[in-house]
Amino acid sequence: MMFHRGEFTIATRSRGTYDITHDVATIVAASRAGDGLATIFVHHTSASLIICENADPTVRSDLERFLGDLVPDGDPRFDHVAEGVDDMPAHVRTILTQTSIGIPIEASKLGLGTWQGLYLWEHRTTPHRRRVTVTVIGA
Amino acid sequence: MMFHRGEFTIATRSRGTYDITHDVATIVAASRAGDGLATIFVHHTSASLIICENADPTVRSDLERFLGDLVPDGDPRFDHVAEGVDDMPAHVRTILTQTSIGIPIEASKLGLGTWQGLYLWEHRTTPHRRRVTVTVIGA
Amino acid sequence: MMFHRGEFTIATRSRGTYDITHDVATIVAASRAGDGLATIFVHHTSASLIICENADPTVRSDLERFLGDLVPDGDPRFDHVAEGVDDMPAHVRTILTQTSIGIPIEASKLGLGTWQGLYLWEHRTTPHRRRVTVTVIGA
Repeated sequence: MMFHRGEFTIATRSRGTYDITHDVATIVAASRAGDGLATIFVHHTSASLIICENADPTVRSDLERFLGDLVPDGDPRFDHVAEGVDDMPAHVRTILTQTSIGIPIEASKLGLGTWQGLYLWEHRTTPHRRRVTVTVIGA
Repeated sequence: MMFHRGEFTIATRSRGTYDITHDVATIVAASRAGDGLATIFVHHTSASLIICENADPTVRSDLERFLGDLVPDGDPRFDHVAEGVDDMPAHVRTILTQTSIGIPIEASKLGLGTWQGLYLWEHRTTPHRRRVTVTVIGA
Repeated sequence: MMFHRGEFTIATRSRGTYDITHDVATIVAASRAGDGLATIFVHHTSASLIICENADPTVRSDLERFLGDLVPDGDPRFDHVAEGVDDMPAHVRTILTQTSIGIPIEASKLGLGTWQGLYLWEHRTTPHRRRVTVTVIGA
């Protein structure tokens, strides 16, 4: 059994999804695990992780529209407006998606399905630096 | 410390929840782990995992109705309609639930609570084959 | 590589979020893992886990209001009302949040971001005892 940890930072430009599949796969390759589990964790409460269809970008623009309507910026129900109209929606959107995801490692590779991509979802409308840690436990 | 991986496929008939608790427990038993962690992963973006009350089936029919109303099939806001009116809703429903879940192994068994069952949720309205991987890391 | 498991129980008073960061950190410290992964699991289907902003309590009161409006108590669409008007909403709210979360252990500590706290979210309106298990796999 072996343990490996890697991390990287994504500089986001604005609200939206950022493909981090390759960043995570690079850490998995560096770990030299043949079999195992990669657990991805984002160290923030206004950005999150999703595994999403990776072929047609309209899937992610539709997701954006859906969540934008479900949790509107500037919703007068929200008291927490310290950092702007997108502040509290970003926290709600994070809660409704994922902060950590565990993915199997098979044959030294991230065992995602054919149409699965791993994305960091920036929920704030302004640029941020987002730290992601990948923990590999393997054999 | 030990590592074990197992997998199975569920042939779904239509949208709905499929109890996979027993399938996962069988892999945990085969691993011979006494203590550990079982991480369940589904390799798709239009089917997902939930841990849900396992006694009264109306819980799951109520869940189905709730999500069906929240993310309606054929919603004109969606551009991604390549595979039909249930295509994009299936992706949204997956994002709002889980693609991976980690469950403790206690005394060689899946440590679920009394009322917890593990379900694969098929979000498409047509039959599909869904691959699930169980990664066991234990002692 | 090492394995450690700890558990604790939270006596909830009513619906709301309960900070369990310290309870989990205590188990991580007891494990003596220098590096690793802590997976937190709640053994119930009407209480869940979230990682949320830990500085301003209005974030959590806003979350409460948002989910209360999204999944109203006493919603006439729900058939599962065995334990009261908050019964089925509690199951839906659990499905939309998390039952398990994996957090990296870095330098013998829970590797949460500066503004991240770990909360148990009681979704029932009456007091309950909630069991939480922490599985530590480390080096």
